[in-house]
Amino acid sequence: MIETDILIIGAGPTGLFTVFEAGLLKLKCHLIDALPQPGGQCSEIYPKKPIYDIPAFPEVLAGDLVDNLMKQIEPFQPGFTLGERAETIDKLDDGTFIVTTSKGTKHHAPVVAIAGGLGSFEPRKPPISGIDAYEDKGVSYMIRDPEVYRNKNVVISGGGDSALDWSIFLTDIAESVTLIHRRNEFRGALDSVEKVQELKNLGKINLVTPAEVVGLVGEDKVEGVVIKKEAEEFTLACDAFIPLFGLAPKLGPIADWGLEIEKNAIKVDNSLDYQTNIPGIYAIGDVNTYPGKLKLILCGFHEATLMCQSAFQRIYPDKRYVMKYTTVGGVEGFDGTKKEAPKAVVKAID
Amino acid sequence: MIETDILIIGAGPTGLFTVFEAGLLKLKCHLIDALPQPGGQCSEIYPKKPIYDIPAFPEVLAGDLVDNLMKQIEPFQPGFTLGERAETIDKLDDGTFIVTTSKGTKHHAPVVAIAGGLGSFEPRKPPISGIDAYEDKGVSYMIRDPEVYRNKNVVISGGGDSALDWSIFLTDIAESVTLIHRRNEFRGALDSVEKVQELKNLGKINLVTPAEVVGLVGEDKVEGVVIKKEAEEFTLACDAFIPLFGLAPKLGPIADWGLEIEKNAIKVDNSLDYQTNIPGIYAIGDVNTYPGKLKLILCGFHEATLMCQSAFQRIYPDKRYVMKYTTVGGVEGFDGTKKEAPKAVVKAID
Ligand SMILES: Cc1cc2nc3c(=O)[nH]c(=O)nc-3n(C[C@H](O)[C@H](O)[C@H](O)COP(=O)(O)OP(=O)(O)OC[C@H]3O[C@@H](n4cnc5c(N)ncnc54)[C@H](O)[C@@H]3O)c2cc1C
Ligand SMILES: Cc1cc2nc3c(=O)[nH]c(=O)nc-3n(C[C@H](O)[C@H](O)[C@H](O)COP(=O)(O)OP(=O)(O)OC[C@H]3O[C@@H](n4cnc5c(N)ncnc54)[C@H](O)[C@@H]3O)c2cc1C
Repeated sequence: MIETDILIIGAGPTGLFTVFEAGLLKLKCHLIDALPQPGGQCSEIYPKKPIYDIPAFPEVLAGDLVDNLMKQIEPFQPGFTLGERAETIDKLDDGTFIVTTSKGTKHHAPVVAIAGGLGSFEPRKPPISGIDAYEDKGVSYMIRDPEVYRNKNVVISGGGDSALDWSIFLTDIAESVTLIHRRNEFRGALDSVEKVQELKNLGKINLVTPAEVVGLVGEDKVEGVVIKKEAEEFTLACDAFIPLFGLAPKLGPIADWGLEIEKNAIKVDNSLDYQTNIPGIYAIGDVNTYPGKLKLILCGFHEATLMCQSAFQRIYPDKRYVMKYTTVGGVEGFDGTKKEAPKAVVKAID
Repeated sequence: MIETDILIIGAGPTGLFTVFEAGLLKLKCHLIDALPQPGGQCSEIYPKKPIYDIPAFPEVLAGDLVDNLMKQIEPFQPGFTLGERAETIDKLDDGTFIVTTSKGTKHHAPVVAIAGGLGSFEPRKPPISGIDAYEDKGVSYMIRDPEVYRNKNVVISGGGDSALDWSIFLTDIAESVTLIHRRNEFRGALDSVEKVQELKNLGKINLVTPAEVVGLVGEDKVEGVVIKKEAEEFTLACDAFIPLFGLAPKLGPIADWGLEIEKNAIKVDNSLDYQTNIPGIYAIGDVNTYPGKLKLILCGFHEATLMCQSAFQRIYPDKRYVMKYTTVGGVEGFDGTKKEAPKAVVKAID
């Protein structure tokens, strides 16, 4: 059982910044995310694109924003349960919660902050009959740890950035990389497309277009894919098949937790602390709704900050928290680090 | 008469970021501030100190935060009325407002956003009898334009960072610089104290301590200061006397504008759009109050953003604004500039 003060569901920008604000209040956080990496939409959908409306950043790449947040929260040593979806929540008699993931990992906390964005990212699966049976037996819809493909024969299918970027990346690790796409045209960053062209010319990527994977073969695990290229069908032996057709967010199991839902989002009390209809459960960032709500990153930051104050009162009803500016009080990490402004000196001039 | 869409009172971080959010909605902004420079508390009180809780900045100097905001809003060409205090507000029959400053400058806008922080910064004046009569006739409590001191004999008094830093700065411009402080000890950044020591040793700063200015002489303007050093009193001829005893914010005239005030702040409706009890007037940032309010910079950013949406509806009741992410829609400046994310390519690999 993982124990923490604030259990955060969703490691997007909102969830990440919550760790910082909670840390200032000496509250520990643990984050659950269905994705294998933190950053939510920023990491999954547009890591290499610039955002222009993060305050005081005339321009910042979404991926850099996430890196900066990770660096900012580092002193507060957040825990992560990645690649698992929060499935169920149980309220105990003492008012605390247990949240269990798709892989059965259990988390226990007095406060739950849902920062689930548009929902947990679920892969778009190709319509190949029997594919479910091969999941985790050679078939993966996202890559958690590229090392598992070392010296393997890998088939990737898809025509966007993920398919391009992972094909490039895996050429250094896998025994062979085959990229299959139903058109000759790929859609992605110019340098990725050019790099794949180059690797294909060098014989490092085996390109099969226009073509589709229409079947899978293998006893207990994937041993090959059936490819349909124009009129022809043939089987290609391989150890892994990775269809990368993008991920789509689904509010998913959270919709059944007894929370008030409106327009596919969780209703919160924005006049106070972004709490939901269940005391102890808050919803912040893209996942919540209230009059005038804007699904913007900077709004999630504010919501997280106010929410942490309320969470503190819930966890320590008898303590009175006196806010100190970070400039004045510094930042004391749970890892023993301390950042603080250089003090002014009082010094005679003679 | 200065005409604009949103008239912002206060050019602190909240007021500055408002320009950006308004700009995305194609609304023009003009800012009034009592201080000679933008940045509010960040520029006036702690420009060289680090802030740790600006999202995605593990650390940023307050002065750099302001510089970044100025850069971010540049494409939206805000107007500035600096060094003037907003004194009165009049609501016209058509629901628009006229705001007049201490110097009589008039501003006309359909929406007023008060981002006045803790209030307009007013200098702490030394208790020298008759000093009022010399104001702007050789006596200044803050330095707007250092050039007016070129080749002048300047007397500065004070023992903090402002007194130290301006003494250093003016040695290059003024004919002579005298620094008077009632103690031998100065309180400031170490390098400033050391620099003053060095300039004193070089004879470039005339240091008089422990001493006080107790009187002023001159017909129509300052011609000298009366200094009391220990038991002795003497007159030192000079052209300018600049007492730098710090600025203290005062809510000031805004308190009499008919707005609901609570705890020295303006009550707003945080459940919607941060509007005050007078339709068309909003209050954002440190200057407002609502249940759970935190006087933090990141909160001002969020409040400004929601407020701009409401201002847009007030100005264009019949237009429907469809929010576009900056990453997707880019940023179109009023100066003709356009920033946008590089587009993905669709390109064949052969
Ligand atoms: C193309 C594009 C451009 C954008 N441009 C901008 C812009 O310029 N400015 C701006 O402010 N915003 C922009 N946005 C929106 C911005 O990305 C979101 O507002 C932001 O990501 C919301 O952050 P969040 O942390 O609330 O949620 P998300 O980033 O959506 O993160 C939520 C996380 O929760 C996880 N999750 C959800 N449910 C579960 C569950 N049950 N179990 C486990 N994990 C779960 C998800 O997997 C996800 O990782 C853009 C979005 C897109 C798609
Ligand atoms: C030492 C110190 C450390 C701090 N550290 C942090 C920190 O670590 N993190 C954090 O988030 N916050 C911190 N703060 C607080 C932060 O600076 C404020 O929250 C922020 O400046 C508020 O911004 P604002 O734009 O709302 O108001 P302000 O910065 O106060 O700006 C308001 C401006 O309005 C002007 N004004 C007011 N009335 C009038 C009028 N009638 N006419 C003309 N002009 C007027 C004032 O002159 C002023 O320039 C700190 C503050 C101090 C003093």
